[in-house]
Amino acid sequence: MLKTILTNVKKYTPIVHSITNYVTVNDCANIILASGGSPIMADELDEMKDIVSLCSSLVINIGTLNKNTIQSMFLAGKIANELNIPIVFDPVGAGASNLRKETSFALLDKVNFSVIKGNISEIKFLANKIGNTSGVDACDSDKITTENLDSIISFAKSFSQKTGSIIAISGEIDIVASADKAYIIKNGHSFMELVTGTGCMLSALVGNYIATNKDNILEATVTAFCAMGVCGELAHKQLLSMNGGTNTYKMLLIDFISKLTIDILKAGAKIECR
Amino acid sequence: MLKTILTNVKKYTPIVHSITNYVTVNDCANIILASGGSPIMADELDEMKDIVSLCSSLVINIGTLNKNTIQSMFLAGKIANELNIPIVFDPVGAGASNLRKETSFALLDKVNFSVIKGNISEIKFLANKIGNTSGVDACDSDKITTENLDSIISFAKSFSQKTGSIIAISGEIDIVASADKAYIIKNGHSFMELVTGTGCMLSALVGNYIATNKDNILEATVTAFCAMGVCGELAHKQLLSMNGGTNTYKMLLIDFISKLTIDILKAGAKIECR
Amino acid sequence: MLKTILTNVKKYTPIVHSITNYVTVNDCANIILASGGSPIMADELDEMKDIVSLCSSLVINIGTLNKNTIQSMFLAGKIANELNIPIVFDPVGAGASNLRKETSFALLDKVNFSVIKGNISEIKFLANKIGNTSGVDACDSDKITTENLDSIISFAKSFSQKTGSIIAISGEIDIVASADKAYIIKNGHSFMELVTGTGCMLSALVGNYIATNKDNILEATVTAFCAMGVCGELAHKQLLSMNGGTNTYKMLLIDFISKLTIDILKAGAKIECR
Repeated sequence: MLKTILTNVKKYTPIVHSITNYVTVNDCANIILASGGSPIMADELDEMKDIVSLCSSLVINIGTLNKNTIQSMFLAGKIANELNIPIVFDPVGAGASNLRKETSFALLDKVNFSVIKGNISEIKFLANKIGNTSGVDACDSDKITTENLDSIISFAKSFSQKTGSIIAISGEIDIVASADKAYIIKNGHSFMELVTGTGCMLSALVGNYIATNKDNILEATVTAFCAMGVCGELAHKQLLSMNGGTNTYKMLLIDFISKLTIDILKAGAKIECR
Repeated sequence: MLKTILTNVKKYTPIVHSITNYVTVNDCANIILASGGSPIMADELDEMKDIVSLCSSLVINIGTLNKNTIQSMFLAGKIANELNIPIVFDPVGAGASNLRKETSFALLDKVNFSVIKGNISEIKFLANKIGNTSGVDACDSDKITTENLDSIISFAKSFSQKTGSIIAISGEIDIVASADKAYIIKNGHSFMELVTGTGCMLSALVGNYIATNKDNILEATVTAFCAMGVCGELAHKQLLSMNGGTNTYKMLLIDFISKLTIDILKAGAKIECR
Repeated sequence: MLKTILTNVKKYTPIVHSITNYVTVNDCANIILASGGSPIMADELDEMKDIVSLCSSLVINIGTLNKNTIQSMFLAGKIANELNIPIVFDPVGAGASNLRKETSFALLDKVNFSVIKGNISEIKFLANKIGNTSGVDACDSDKITTENLDSIISFAKSFSQKTGSIIAISGEIDIVASADKAYIIKNGHSFMELVTGTGCMLSALVGNYIATNKDNILEATVTAFCAMGVCGELAHKQLLSMNGGTNTYKMLLIDFISKLTIDILKAGAKIECR
């Protein structure tokens, strides 16, 4: 799986369009470039149709949504669906405000996403609204542990079935699931939480990986999660040897994405299929 | 003082909400994370109430203000005041345009700030308008020197009395004053001016420090200024050994904030109370 | 030429105003600081007049244009022209949407730019519309090569004559032309394309160089292009010794701009006048 996906990623230079937040946008553009894609960030409604039409994938991230960009998200989603362009949805802080909640729910209603990617709290929040009752209620905590892993996998598969999207949950243990198949990825490092935008960057990376692997969205998403986690581990290892801090860590993380080979990925991957 | 403040900073992970400029927003988010906080950047009016309500402090920075974000600043300030959430105000370039001037004055009028933080020009500009006549007129230059230090301290105390805010003036010598007490901090390095956003990052850091030290705003602000200065010095020392330039310097600055301990802070602090 | 231009750049600290995109704005501000300027990024219409009036040059970059910032671009351009403040125009992705196309053409119509800077596709796109028929049609490919160099130089000179602007085309070989004189610069490194914003940073650098060399816009632009290219080469050389990736490369690039001396520039420059 890893080899097929990464080979395709390296073979093409897809244009990845992001409507995203201005906090982490630069790092997102750089990780797309580092992984072999070509980023476009554009959010003005008047150019949505033209820009989406140029692209091989679309990433919608609501991190700093506003009245104008919300409109653009809906239009971009509609056009991408018409043109069969895969879309990643990152519902950043979906539960933090009523605006984010309503926007997320309306987007789920109107747009078919290839991948819905968030942390467990965000994904549970979305799923609850849609009326999913299995899995979510079983979770006492928002942390994915070996104890609740099975129930969260069931929840993810069930949510995937209801939405038709790949459900990708980031955490200490990542879960990426379709309706009938789930992967768990045990790569990554706790330092990633000390840098803003590692979640946004992961969504951008998924955007690039699925753009070059349109017929294999599930495995492309798994591979992107694994790549990010492996690079997060390598970055921390190098950081220790440099006695660096969190900002050096960010730099190393993107560096390792830019230097990733199939051998490095395979050597580091901790993926399991359930 | 330093130990108490920093211990609290390390103990909690407060959510710090910033309405800030898009030039330096990523570095501000990263310095909040590096110092142990959890950043949220949101500026859409429709979600202000929800977001502010989640937070332990608010930072308002007018660096790239616009019609929409100005409205959000007023509403966020109002709600934060109602909820007793401390607010830092950074009047970036307050004198550079009529819009910044009017916005700053109206904010001072409508919102109670815990801390007003700027360079001496910005602070003098604000104070003049409010009708403060002592101190400001005595300053022939905008640079804080040992010669004019006493008069600027008097000015800062007086401005603090009029506004009820801690007045925090950054410069080669920093001054942080309440109505009856002033600290001067002689940490920092001239290289900090060669990186965009060190002022904004300092405001963000103050936001994090006061969020965890609500009953001690004056000393929390002093400690944040001292921490930034000490890290600026350490970053320069390491930069020299690396023969690096200004962008490496920025990385090292945030790195040292992420590695700051009470021992490092105490060893480097150059604080005086007047 | 290099010495005169760079000496002026180092002598003054001009305020450079940018209306630019939020993807690369931080790096643009940092490269202006690294090269000795003082950046202001402001895009609210209501403060355009005040901000432009403070500045020594203006950079207009349409990378993430929107309805509001487009208005600001026109007003800023008008005021800068009235005040004889030199303007750089970077028509990022001019052909990517109808909005960008119409905005670019209208700006060319209403504003006199000192420098129009883009890659060959963007410049050709602009020139075609204006009715230039020489040069453009002769280009079968969008890449500048030794084969088509002469025809692109003719095209650039001709487009410069029609617009009254210096035409600055970035690529593996850069071309900077006035109506009767063209320079080709063979500095740079392919790694620069793996970092978002090297083009935007170059426009920002041109903004700083022309601000301090108003009577010598052509040579100032050539020198800025050369400086960026030389630093791109030096950054790559150091990157190899560090086994770094693309994000370290970005840091080194800005570092070398901050450390640039006339000796370094002269030693690396590969400039030819035709």
